[in-house]
Amino acid sequence: MATKLIIAIVQDKDANRVSDAFVDQNVRATKLSTTGGFLQAGNTTFMIGIEEERIDEVLQLIKDASHTRDEFMTPPVNLDGGMEGTTSYPVKVQVGGATVFVLPVDQFMHF
Amino acid sequence: MATKLIIAIVQDKDANRVSDAFVDQNVRATKLSTTGGFLQAGNTTFMIGIEEERIDEVLQLIKDASHTRDEFMTPPVNLDGGMEGTTSYPVKVQVGGATVFVLPVDQFMHF
Amino acid sequence: MATKLIIAIVQDKDANRVSDAFVDQNVRATKLSTTGGFLQAGNTTFMIGIEEERIDEVLQLIKDASHTRDEFMTPPVNLDGGMEGTTSYPVKVQVGGATVFVLPVDQFMHF
Ligand code: NI
Ligand code: NI
Ligand code: NI
Repeated sequence: MATKLIIAIVQDKDANRVSDAFVDQNVRATKLSTTGGFLQAGNTTFMIGIEEERIDEVLQLIKDASHTRDEFMTPPVNLDGGMEGTTSYPVKVQVGGATVFVLPVDQFMHF
Repeated sequence: MATKLIIAIVQDKDANRVSDAFVDQNVRATKLSTTGGFLQAGNTTFMIGIEEERIDEVLQLIKDASHTRDEFMTPPVNLDGGMEGTTSYPVKVQVGGATVFVLPVDQFMHF
Repeated sequence: MATKLIIAIVQDKDANRVSDAFVDQNVRATKLSTTGGFLQAGNTTFMIGIEEERIDEVLQLIKDASHTRDEFMTPPVNLDGGMEGTTSYPVKVQVGGATVFVLPVDQFMHF
């Protein structure tokens, strides 16, 4: 039974959902605070040691909880005034997204 | 002489002892603050680049400094009262424990 | 097109220069705050997923931005006094330095 090391980098906003999914499915993960590519805002990196047979299951958990998707956000109304009756319409923004590495492991131990 | 990357996750309470053992034995380690599996309290992750011949030595250092063991802890006396003469007896608690990965390395460099 | 995971540990003082070089060359990196070997001061760890063909380019970027070099530093004049006319001469100090691992990757995914 070979063990692999999964390193998954997700947005901070999805980190709790990913953690919850791991706890539900009995996947042990270690969490690192990290900063994103291209100086983007904070993200969270998970390290997971997992038996090869469960790789697909764990990848699916990560995907479900953090994949790139569109959300509708209502921008705040401009307080500088303007015409009466100005309304703020929801706009589509892309959120989420995960980068995942599966690494080979020579030895895996608990002491 | 192949180099390996050891990733060792230990409890915060054992981190100083692990660091000290590394310094004593001239093992260079980089330390990350991490959060534990199952939302447990803080732990510390060490990354160590090491020649293959020293793997067993380093694993033994980590094991000695952080392995799971029982400790006796005296719980605080319940202040809500109860019978006079109530005493607090030491109870056995499990502490420590390390999770360790040894990873293959394609290239290892110092600049 | 195989992907590799580069883990690069550099001094905090060089971290911004490394980040800037990555952004310039369109290299996505995730940044971790870490503490150095031998209890040295803070350093920064970058994780970079990169196609095998770009390894040498990325290693060169890291080397250029963070390699060990001598700098001249003028130590503060000793305020305890001493002879009038005491001057502080620049001294040579070694700064920088990077430790870099290139790791094999079994699977690399974006979700
Ligand atoms: Ni979805
Ligand atoms: Ni013991
Ligand atoms: Ni130079």
